[in-house]
Amino acid sequence: MKVVVIGGGTGSFTVLRGLKDKVEGLSAVVSMFDSGGSTGLLRDEFGILPPGDVRRCLIALADENDMLRKLFMFRFDEHSSLQGHSFGNLFLTALTEITGSEAEAIRQASKILRIKGSVLPVSFDNCHVCAELENGLTIKGETNIDVPKHDPNLRIVKTWLAPEAKANPEAVDAILQADLVVIGPGDLFSSIIPNLLVKGIPEALKKTKAKKVYVCNLMTKLGESTGFKASDFVREIKRYGGVPDAVVCNTSKGSPVLLKKYANQNQFPVFVDEKEIEKLNVKLAAGDVMSTPELIRHDSEKLANFLIKLAR
Amino acid sequence: MKVVVIGGGTGSFTVLRGLKDKVEGLSAVVSMFDSGGSTGLLRDEFGILPPGDVRRCLIALADENDMLRKLFMFRFDEHSSLQGHSFGNLFLTALTEITGSEAEAIRQASKILRIKGSVLPVSFDNCHVCAELENGLTIKGETNIDVPKHDPNLRIVKTWLAPEAKANPEAVDAILQADLVVIGPGDLFSSIIPNLLVKGIPEALKKTKAKKVYVCNLMTKLGESTGFKASDFVREIKRYGGVPDAVVCNTSKGSPVLLKKYANQNQFPVFVDEKEIEKLNVKLAAGDVMSTPELIRHDSEKLANFLIKLAR
Repeated sequence: MKVVVIGGGTGSFTVLRGLKDKVEGLSAVVSMFDSGGSTGLLRDEFGILPPGDVRRCLIALADENDMLRKLFMFRFDEHSSLQGHSFGNLFLTALTEITGSEAEAIRQASKILRIKGSVLPVSFDNCHVCAELENGLTIKGETNIDVPKHDPNLRIVKTWLAPEAKANPEAVDAILQADLVVIGPGDLFSSIIPNLLVKGIPEALKKTKAKKVYVCNLMTKLGESTGFKASDFVREIKRYGGVPDAVVCNTSKGSPVLLKKYANQNQFPVFVDEKEIEKLNVKLAAGDVMSTPELIRHDSEKLANFLIKLAR
Repeated sequence: MKVVVIGGGTGSFTVLRGLKDKVEGLSAVVSMFDSGGSTGLLRDEFGILPPGDVRRCLIALADENDMLRKLFMFRFDEHSSLQGHSFGNLFLTALTEITGSEAEAIRQASKILRIKGSVLPVSFDNCHVCAELENGLTIKGETNIDVPKHDPNLRIVKTWLAPEAKANPEAVDAILQADLVVIGPGDLFSSIIPNLLVKGIPEALKKTKAKKVYVCNLMTKLGESTGFKASDFVREIKRYGGVPDAVVCNTSKGSPVLLKKYANQNQFPVFVDEKEIEKLNVKLAAGDVMSTPELIRHDSEKLANFLIKLAR
């Protein structure tokens, strides 16, 4: 079974790690518009595309016991002159400088790490995610959506890439040839939808015969999905051309103590409004895909098994 | 044939690269007292032993076509926030932080780079090279000997390590089991002699049945070996317990144009004073071991072949 996972952040990491040993032909289509942290620094200074999300996907697909994988995960002390840089980011930056292209750098890194599957940047165009808020304000840069400096209660009404980006043909091919396309989970406007903003991706999703499954977040996120129900997530995915056949929603619950902690950070469990989802013409696939009541995260194994069953 | 190369800088690199595919059981015993550049920065900031000389030896023993070798040789832009750091140094620093020891970091790096032979730090003790000048001034730190801030015409009358260092048992073992020990070439007081200042190294050199060959420099170096003849180099090596059976001196000459360039930097060909060397009870092995008249450097191939012939 050929599977494509579209996303970029820790959500993709979780899905990929679970699927890695369960399917052949696994591809990660990765957002390339990150602009914060170590990644943002390298992007600004070396003029390379942001390596952070690629790094995460490479780690997810590498052998767990490999020392190079440990190196890729290593981060230098924030208070040192290496400014908290991720070693994996420096690795990808050096490879890009040596080989002269991000595409070749990722190929070489994949080879060195002997990853299972492939990591495909959604685009090689250098651009930023922009968003318009309900009060008319425009914000620019993934990190400003992810960690909002504006009133986080303002709803995002529109997102786009500036300048426009066209899809990496390898990413398009992978989608066209897939049996299953998994979209998400991940931060809706800063991590997932940016992939759908790339010219050629919605077209490929429409054309492919693959089953398309959107994995809905477990919790809402202040500034990106304040007050969102499951149908709101699905509606946005559809609006930007995600065309999901089904949406995976979690049914298990976090412990009250933990939920309180999340509530203090203005994060709440996503309410699964079955009827509204039905109206969107998307099949609800509900099940226990959460880690444990002590950790409100998707569980790699549970989610992978759930997705494989869905695809059959 | 088991060969040990004692040194650290570019001299060791040249010898190791030449011997790599010609002998089995090649070990590099490496000085660990570097204090300048990228290496010095990491040493100060992360409290690790200086990785620079280890890095050079690893590169010398790695497969030429390997991308990881290219990465190890890569240096970030001096004007970037990565301050001209060598990627190989960052690699070794991260590995040291992950594994918790320099010894294990070097073992892991050797494995990852699939090097031929082994790289053995002469000591794991954290100390600095010190030197006393003929005017009584004491200077501290390898980089202050290498790039003198004092009057470079003052002769170095004494060198020592502060605090004292004891030898890495693996380095001692390698010397004891060797058939051939090559000392040098390299900067006399900043690169070669520091190895002999380590407790246990002169003892091992005295005890081993290996043939011991000192490779004399081609050119004098201002501040370290101003006005030195070959016998002066040999005398210093002997004085610090190097006990060489033979000294390799070059017989070919650089082009006049090139020699003028070197002269402008106060570097002159080392005069081979045969009689004086004889008096020191060291066999003179003279031959063409230089790269080309256009490049006054030892030639890896020529030098390796010459050394192997000598050892037989």
